[in-house]
Amino acid sequence: MTYQPPVREHLFLLRDILAIEQYATLPGFADASYETVGQILEAAATFNAEVIAPLNAVGDKQGCRLNPDHSVVTPDGFKEAYRALVEAGWPALGADPAWGGQGLPAVVNLAVSEMASSANMAFGMYPGLTHGAYSAIEYGGSDDQKALYLPRLASGQWTGTMNLTEPQCGTDLGLLRTKAVPAGDGTYRITGQKIWISGGEHDLAENIVHLVLARIEGAPGGTRGISLFIVPKFIPNADGSLGARNSVICAGLEKKMGIHGSATCVMAHDEATGWLIGEENRGLAVMFVMMNEARIGVGLQGLAQAEAAYQAAAAFARDRLQGRALTGPKNPDGPADSILVHPDVRRMLLDARAILEAGRAFLFWTALRGDLAHRHPDEAVRQRAEDYMGLLTPVLKGYLTDRGFAICSDSMQVYGGSGFTETFSASQSLRDSRITLIYEGTNGVQALDLVGRKLGAKGGRAVMTFLGEIDAFVAAESADPDLKRFTDALAGAKAQLQQGTMWLMQNGLTNPDNAGAASTDYMHLFGLTGLAFMWALMAKAALARMAAGDTDPFYANKLLIGRHFIERILPLTGAHLAKLESGSATLMSFPSEAF
Amino acid sequence: MTYQPPVREHLFLLRDILAIEQYATLPGFADASYETVGQILEAAATFNAEVIAPLNAVGDKQGCRLNPDHSVVTPDGFKEAYRALVEAGWPALGADPAWGGQGLPAVVNLAVSEMASSANMAFGMYPGLTHGAYSAIEYGGSDDQKALYLPRLASGQWTGTMNLTEPQCGTDLGLLRTKAVPAGDGTYRITGQKIWISGGEHDLAENIVHLVLARIEGAPGGTRGISLFIVPKFIPNADGSLGARNSVICAGLEKKMGIHGSATCVMAHDEATGWLIGEENRGLAVMFVMMNEARIGVGLQGLAQAEAAYQAAAAFARDRLQGRALTGPKNPDGPADSILVHPDVRRMLLDARAILEAGRAFLFWTALRGDLAHRHPDEAVRQRAEDYMGLLTPVLKGYLTDRGFAICSDSMQVYGGSGFTETFSASQSLRDSRITLIYEGTNGVQALDLVGRKLGAKGGRAVMTFLGEIDAFVAAESADPDLKRFTDALAGAKAQLQQGTMWLMQNGLTNPDNAGAASTDYMHLFGLTGLAFMWALMAKAALARMAAGDTDPFYANKLLIGRHFIERILPLTGAHLAKLESGSATLMSFPSEAF
Repeated sequence: MTYQPPVREHLFLLRDILAIEQYATLPGFADASYETVGQILEAAATFNAEVIAPLNAVGDKQGCRLNPDHSVVTPDGFKEAYRALVEAGWPALGADPAWGGQGLPAVVNLAVSEMASSANMAFGMYPGLTHGAYSAIEYGGSDDQKALYLPRLASGQWTGTMNLTEPQCGTDLGLLRTKAVPAGDGTYRITGQKIWISGGEHDLAENIVHLVLARIEGAPGGTRGISLFIVPKFIPNADGSLGARNSVICAGLEKKMGIHGSATCVMAHDEATGWLIGEENRGLAVMFVMMNEARIGVGLQGLAQAEAAYQAAAAFARDRLQGRALTGPKNPDGPADSILVHPDVRRMLLDARAILEAGRAFLFWTALRGDLAHRHPDEAVRQRAEDYMGLLTPVLKGYLTDRGFAICSDSMQVYGGSGFTETFSASQSLRDSRITLIYEGTNGVQALDLVGRKLGAKGGRAVMTFLGEIDAFVAAESADPDLKRFTDALAGAKAQLQQGTMWLMQNGLTNPDNAGAASTDYMHLFGLTGLAFMWALMAKAALARMAAGDTDPFYANKLLIGRHFIERILPLTGAHLAKLESGSATLMSFPSEAF
Repeated sequence: MTYQPPVREHLFLLRDILAIEQYATLPGFADASYETVGQILEAAATFNAEVIAPLNAVGDKQGCRLNPDHSVVTPDGFKEAYRALVEAGWPALGADPAWGGQGLPAVVNLAVSEMASSANMAFGMYPGLTHGAYSAIEYGGSDDQKALYLPRLASGQWTGTMNLTEPQCGTDLGLLRTKAVPAGDGTYRITGQKIWISGGEHDLAENIVHLVLARIEGAPGGTRGISLFIVPKFIPNADGSLGARNSVICAGLEKKMGIHGSATCVMAHDEATGWLIGEENRGLAVMFVMMNEARIGVGLQGLAQAEAAYQAAAAFARDRLQGRALTGPKNPDGPADSILVHPDVRRMLLDARAILEAGRAFLFWTALRGDLAHRHPDEAVRQRAEDYMGLLTPVLKGYLTDRGFAICSDSMQVYGGSGFTETFSASQSLRDSRITLIYEGTNGVQALDLVGRKLGAKGGRAVMTFLGEIDAFVAAESADPDLKRFTDALAGAKAQLQQGTMWLMQNGLTNPDNAGAASTDYMHLFGLTGLAFMWALMAKAALARMAAGDTDPFYANKLLIGRHFIERILPLTGAHLAKLESGSATLMSFPSEAF
């Protein structure tokens, strides 16, 4: 079964939930009419389903290969597919027209990125990180740097990487040792070892632009002495032609549980030539532009792998004849019934749908805030959108990847024994998706970012606004009897999220360990409430369509899946609230040596 | 970090919770004094940690190899380790002395099996399935069959397999096609293809005894026409010496996500010579002896992999210096604090401990029922024990493997990025453990067995007895203020399990889809209640030790972990109850074609 990009879902969200045509006066949105977007998404669907998806299993089985000369060979077909990707202009979709991009809203680009991540997550990481490097240089680079790098990153002619991690330094960037020494000519000599560098070396593009965190000689220790550098694989001339090979090489490839087609490199910088981006010792601020974008992207990957896993499992279930319905044969002329007759198989598949459809809505809804934060003329709208982006990024990354992995596991379960063999795609989906809980900050780090940084920022403005927006929606809609099931459920979840928020404000400030102990459950409570909000929005839109006489079963099915969410997913809120309110005393009193 | 068999936990359970010396008058238990058992477990710990565990990563990396002559080569070292295992007599531990076994209680054997499964699950499957074949022949075989096969299976000189699955026939054995034709000399000619046969071919032992389900020519269709046959790889002479090679060969090896060291074979039977076990068309009853034993064994595997994963993660966390405690540096002279200072890391590790310790108790507690069912002179005790075995087997298999896999995933999370690389053991634990949710009946099948078969059997006698036993414990102990936290929690969980049971009795009979829809949540609710019971028993025992002046911190830590269970795991009962009570209407009304 081939992956089918969910264009119908995308268009429903862009039109019925987000109504993106209302923003036609904003830059980029003028070109984003429903009709144009529909054409773009259909073309992206064809490209990803036909060109990229067939390479997914190949990439998993072959992996990447490191040659003795430190070059890296990607799996068969990746090179040709990457060329086709660049030629079709897909990387440029969301880039600024000033740099050769098409300037489409981020929310439209997100739909295309989802398809790429579902079709072949490992392959999708090369252009995905390139876009992140583009955004970082666009945010922090000099005019010359922008002119040199942005057009080539926007088009995908060159790819980008982020060089953060070192063996002793992952989450804790303050421990970073890679050093930068001024060369006297405005450049720096960068020396140090970086690990887990996705796309650090490969054969897809003519140049690779490494964004490297390093400490300039004499800079302060900790995170206040970290600068960001551009270290290109080949040093470009001013006209973009390639000059000397820089002394940054791939010293090893990591063997990993999944994403085998993505080259995860040990990068050795040996007095490599680097150019400072922005100010000395202020590198983390720029890197966080790339990181925040990457975090949303990882949340999307979690969802995208789960979507692909769900689709494959549903197709398997339709065809697999085994056993009989508990209520009597449904396929009496066949040797057995399809396993779709079993309530527990349906439970797993509908759990997936209930999370996937609302998770996608939450991602798109938030990505639109990103567009508004950048493009809206009204300062108040921009600020609110920026607040939301900050608040919701860790929720989307952490919650959607936790649930995405669980969906991949449930999807494998639908297959029975076949799922555990490498003959089907379930294993690869499960293995590939597992990294999304870890990279760009583990989900524990996301949860801590949420409770420790985002929640209290500006006196809790972001979360209060979010809770208030839900209140306003419930107040406006709760009179609608058809929607009442959804508004009641949303109000209940929101009340619990509010209670959890209050608990954190009361207990987390006096004892930060309480915040840490509550963080993951709070993040899940937040995710559940966000999804309940999305289900209410989607139910409202579906009911409106049906009231207007639209008989497409899409809408009735949407309501059923929403009901399933309320019945079978949302009851978890109470458990998360009870757990977070249990505090940190037991956790912290357990003696370290007894672990 | 090497795996450390948890002998201290085992002895606590056997002595303080199960008090196995009280059964000294039963066969086998006379040799199971605490002292003897302690010595056995220490010896098993040394053997598994030093001989078996070091082969775990080797097995994963090399896997098994199929030669053109259909022989299978196991990973380096497996053959020597298997020889050492047999020479040391470990396979014979739980076998009947009549067949050369040591006759020790199953509950003691279980502790040793846990070590084997933690040390190297793939390796442990060869002797594990051999014991299952032993049990099936002991239950259903003729005297001649017993005399010929049991001593050699008990010792491990020969290994055993179960040949059930065919491509069109997994859960639904009624679809089985492998056929058996009487040869006229009392034997049968068996022809058909079996898939996913663990240990179907290998180089560890001189002979392999396949137990094969097949349909005798002219037998009824469906499950009422299935017979069980012994199909040995080499046809033994009456004295046990090996005769002709039988025509059953390994036609292929499955590529799998995990347990690479276990040879998962496609077995082609081409008029192979087989001997009927028991009566014609009654093969499933005998096979279920092996299957039920295997199901408990798989629950144990889920726990065992999680134990190994937990241990490795805890060791990593102790050594990994990264970041600072939220409450200020705890290792001010070092570059950073150990990540054990973080509440969320502790949460993951203590979640694991809370499930592992009570899950092990529940397994042991149930395995002791198995001993009592076989060995107790009192008919009432035997019946009650047998009821419990039937009721709890699906719970242990389904609940412990679901939670075991989640623990493996959380353990990987503790590592951060390192966990996803194949340099550490986290990936293998996660991949190996994943099969436990699937084989010997998927966890969905376990849940259905629980609600569809076990719950209602004999008017619900087993579950009513179990709930009554909890009531009696709570009534007897709730006056103890130190224990009150545990008895209150247990009473609360039991009330919810009872409510769920009543719901099923009221709604599952009228509409079986309600039972199917509720099954997985009911199984989890049952597992949680069982673990709450075990925590109450363990807390009581720990408090008694402390009251008697024992200052071993083991007991105080036990109480802390039990508290963690109540605060952080048990709140899930409410969600499971709410989900199961939502019924099947939404699930079943979703159109099949819309999946």
